[in-house]
Amino acid sequence: MTDLLAEARDLDARDPLTRHLDAFIEAPGVTAYLDGNSLGRPLRETPERIARFIRDDWGTRLIRSWDEQWMDLPTELGDRIGRICLDAAAGQTVVADSTTVLLYKLMRAGVAAHPDRREILIEEGNFPTDRFIAEGVAAERGLTLRWLAVDPVHGVQVADVAAAVTDQTALVVLSHVDYRSGALADMAAITDAVHAAGALMLWDLCHSVGAVEVDLDACDVDLAVGCTYKYLNGGPGSPAFAYVNARHHGTLRQPIQGWMGAGDVFAMGSAYAPADGIRQFISGTPPVLGMLAMQGMLDLIEKAGMDAVRMKSVSLTDLAVRAVDEELAPLGVRLLSPRDAALRGGHVTIGHERSAEVTQALWADGVIPDFRFPDGIRLGLSPLSTSHVETVTGVLAVRDQLL
Amino acid sequence: MTDLLAEARDLDARDPLTRHLDAFIEAPGVTAYLDGNSLGRPLRETPERIARFIRDDWGTRLIRSWDEQWMDLPTELGDRIGRICLDAAAGQTVVADSTTVLLYKLMRAGVAAHPDRREILIEEGNFPTDRFIAEGVAAERGLTLRWLAVDPVHGVQVADVAAAVTDQTALVVLSHVDYRSGALADMAAITDAVHAAGALMLWDLCHSVGAVEVDLDACDVDLAVGCTYKYLNGGPGSPAFAYVNARHHGTLRQPIQGWMGAGDVFAMGSAYAPADGIRQFISGTPPVLGMLAMQGMLDLIEKAGMDAVRMKSVSLTDLAVRAVDEELAPLGVRLLSPRDAALRGGHVTIGHERSAEVTQALWADGVIPDFRFPDGIRLGLSPLSTSHVETVTGVLAVRDQLL
Repeated sequence: MTDLLAEARDLDARDPLTRHLDAFIEAPGVTAYLDGNSLGRPLRETPERIARFIRDDWGTRLIRSWDEQWMDLPTELGDRIGRICLDAAAGQTVVADSTTVLLYKLMRAGVAAHPDRREILIEEGNFPTDRFIAEGVAAERGLTLRWLAVDPVHGVQVADVAAAVTDQTALVVLSHVDYRSGALADMAAITDAVHAAGALMLWDLCHSVGAVEVDLDACDVDLAVGCTYKYLNGGPGSPAFAYVNARHHGTLRQPIQGWMGAGDVFAMGSAYAPADGIRQFISGTPPVLGMLAMQGMLDLIEKAGMDAVRMKSVSLTDLAVRAVDEELAPLGVRLLSPRDAALRGGHVTIGHERSAEVTQALWADGVIPDFRFPDGIRLGLSPLSTSHVETVTGVLAVRDQLL
Repeated sequence: MTDLLAEARDLDARDPLTRHLDAFIEAPGVTAYLDGNSLGRPLRETPERIARFIRDDWGTRLIRSWDEQWMDLPTELGDRIGRICLDAAAGQTVVADSTTVLLYKLMRAGVAAHPDRREILIEEGNFPTDRFIAEGVAAERGLTLRWLAVDPVHGVQVADVAAAVTDQTALVVLSHVDYRSGALADMAAITDAVHAAGALMLWDLCHSVGAVEVDLDACDVDLAVGCTYKYLNGGPGSPAFAYVNARHHGTLRQPIQGWMGAGDVFAMGSAYAPADGIRQFISGTPPVLGMLAMQGMLDLIEKAGMDAVRMKSVSLTDLAVRAVDEELAPLGVRLLSPRDAALRGGHVTIGHERSAEVTQALWADGVIPDFRFPDGIRLGLSPLSTSHVETVTGVLAVRDQLL
């Protein structure tokens, strides 16, 4: 509808973050990229940043770069993510393996903290890798996996967690932002409820970091893992980060004890002794190349300010919800995300029985949302790289397919 | 000595692989890079390969690239490494996490194959991360870790393994090329001896792949892990590969069960069911950016031929040994590597009480070997990027420091 597009144009014109849209590489033929929460776009500066790295840091300094800069990169970059995006004081965040491997390490570490407690509580609709890892950890440690039923559209509720967590619960594993609906959990209250039962809380921040403000220290979170190739634009398969609250350092231990997490990396000693602090959560050689692209995005988020990023995110998802109500609801499309922006992360999901074929047609047409089995379309609105016009364009393209 | 340098010049002039030296990025101020087995040099084509990837595959195709090419990249690239470097038939090799994480997965998988057997046998001088992982796996599975004593200069001997492996041994973990001395183990005979005792054999190929020929299928190896940032020039922290012999597919299971190793990645199903074949050894989202640089090096190795690469490697290490004998032995330097090229991988190590300070002085002077605690200097001679002249230059620089 013309008025929605006109409004979107006006919102873009008034939005101070619109100027950052130009920081991202253009994709010819793509009129609306609505999957930045599956894979964020590269910055224009990324190719040259990496080319320069290859020529200079790797190609010229060669092995000397390990001493000069790379050895501390996992913790320095972790600290930076912590400071800009997570409200996490230095020394608690590290960039290391994939999200999956870090979930494994932290779940293993977490359940071992209470050997007398025999249960992991996890949301039944959590992202598959979280559930699969929990399934495996429960099986190998002889624990029970308890599934928390959650209405995905409303997300996990404090009262439900409080009712489900018991003195047998060692660890609770939840996503801060639901990967399906975008529902935003109440991190502070849920963490409190989990602590009241004496369990540890592990938050999956994959769909939060870089889109919504996260306050790990203030919420007294125990453990967290997050992805860097979504809203941190680190590139396909860029390494994830792990947060371990400082009060657990020295007591929690992760099982993949490799040389880069040892107290003295080059001692070549005969027995493993973990490093102090967050460093022990590293295992092997850190994936340095994968840590480069996200640095430019962190610069951008820092410049914009995480509060402003969240404000734009709300503006984008609010507009998407309105457009869905006005343009798609009459065609039988259901909103599968919370209506209240305070309860919503950076994406909006809609449902329609023809979602699969519609998504296929949209992709062919340069409008790229994410199909979610069985009948959902997820509109991922990465705050710094997505415009209001792009958002409305996407919704109108869905309408055109359904008309 | 002038005659050694003249001879080196002559060898370079006659060597058909000399023309490939120009394929690597020059490092101004570095007259001899002798640490390509810690970090291989980037190819000249690498910056543009990666920049193109960022602009096109990531920046333009965006999320569509997962469907179009990335989903199968870990197994396609694994197959390629297998074919060019490992004599491994397709479907058994995958590129995934760090060496350390893959060692953890394969050790866990390996020891579970024989739950009645209670022991891991590992060389006492194996690279720390191998030992640390084995220590951790033994502790968490209630197994005994048995240390195989090995004279590092001569490397692991068949008879010693045969004498140490028993009907209690579940898994034997050894390095094919010793990271200290370069001693090359007899993969075929040792694997046979391990099999004769009913145990599984896990080879660490970090210092072999791309420098010496490896025959995994022919040797009937069970499991192997190798590094790609040494002789495969994948860049700092590029992901490692795992090989699991096809006869173990479907029976061996690794513990980090993530979505990318599941049978149906996008089913979002409620329980983990592993993929068929080697794919189940993947856990999280593969580090795509880290898989790019090594592709150019694999092209180069394929063009040169792995047999020719090994021939040049022997030529380089032979020359290094002769130079050490002539120039360094009179100054009290000991050769800490096998003299027989057939028993040696791609590097040569020397010992002298002043090795630490000498290495420091060499680095400052643009000659870059690797110091090995407590008193070794390791001369890594990456066959395609190192010249004979560079090799002799390195040895003469050591001499000049000791004079």
